[in-house]
Amino acid sequence: MFKANIYVTLKPGVLDPQGEAVKNSLHVLDYPYVDEVRIGKYIQVWLQGEDREKARRELEEMSDKLLANPVIEDYRVEIAEVDEP
Amino acid sequence: MFKANIYVTLKPGVLDPQGEAVKNSLHVLDYPYVDEVRIGKYIQVWLQGEDREKARRELEEMSDKLLANPVIEDYRVEIAEVDEP
Repeated sequence: MFKANIYVTLKPGVLDPQGEAVKNSLHVLDYPYVDEVRIGKYIQVWLQGEDREKARRELEEMSDKLLANPVIEDYRVEIAEVDEP
Repeated sequence: MFKANIYVTLKPGVLDPQGEAVKNSLHVLDYPYVDEVRIGKYIQVWLQGEDREKARRELEEMSDKLLANPVIEDYRVEIAEVDEP
């Protein structure tokens, strides 16, 4: 069994209105030295299987098809082997 | 200058309807061996400063006050020193 961590981020240059709003709120809360905030997704996936390379390949497919929008987002997949839950 | 990565996740036991929906979609897309999906936030913050301990303390404050909801979410803060952009 594997546990994957998938980090989905907006590509550089793509505007992040949510991040901009959080930055402005942090300035109001008296953290003026915050320069930039970008908000992405942290997706944890647990999946059955024993072939790590197959798992990686399929997690990248899942990311391309469903978890990320490849037009405006990048993603990074990390995989660890874990015991059955 | 520091760059922080903040990982915000739902606490164990808190229902994740978005993760559940993604899991069901992955089953429909023919990945039946996906057991569980949990969706959190990956927040990147760039901030001015030279005192790493102060930065960590304040990032934890920011997380408690604004970035996470401590009632239902956990968070983890990672800090790296970076060059000026």
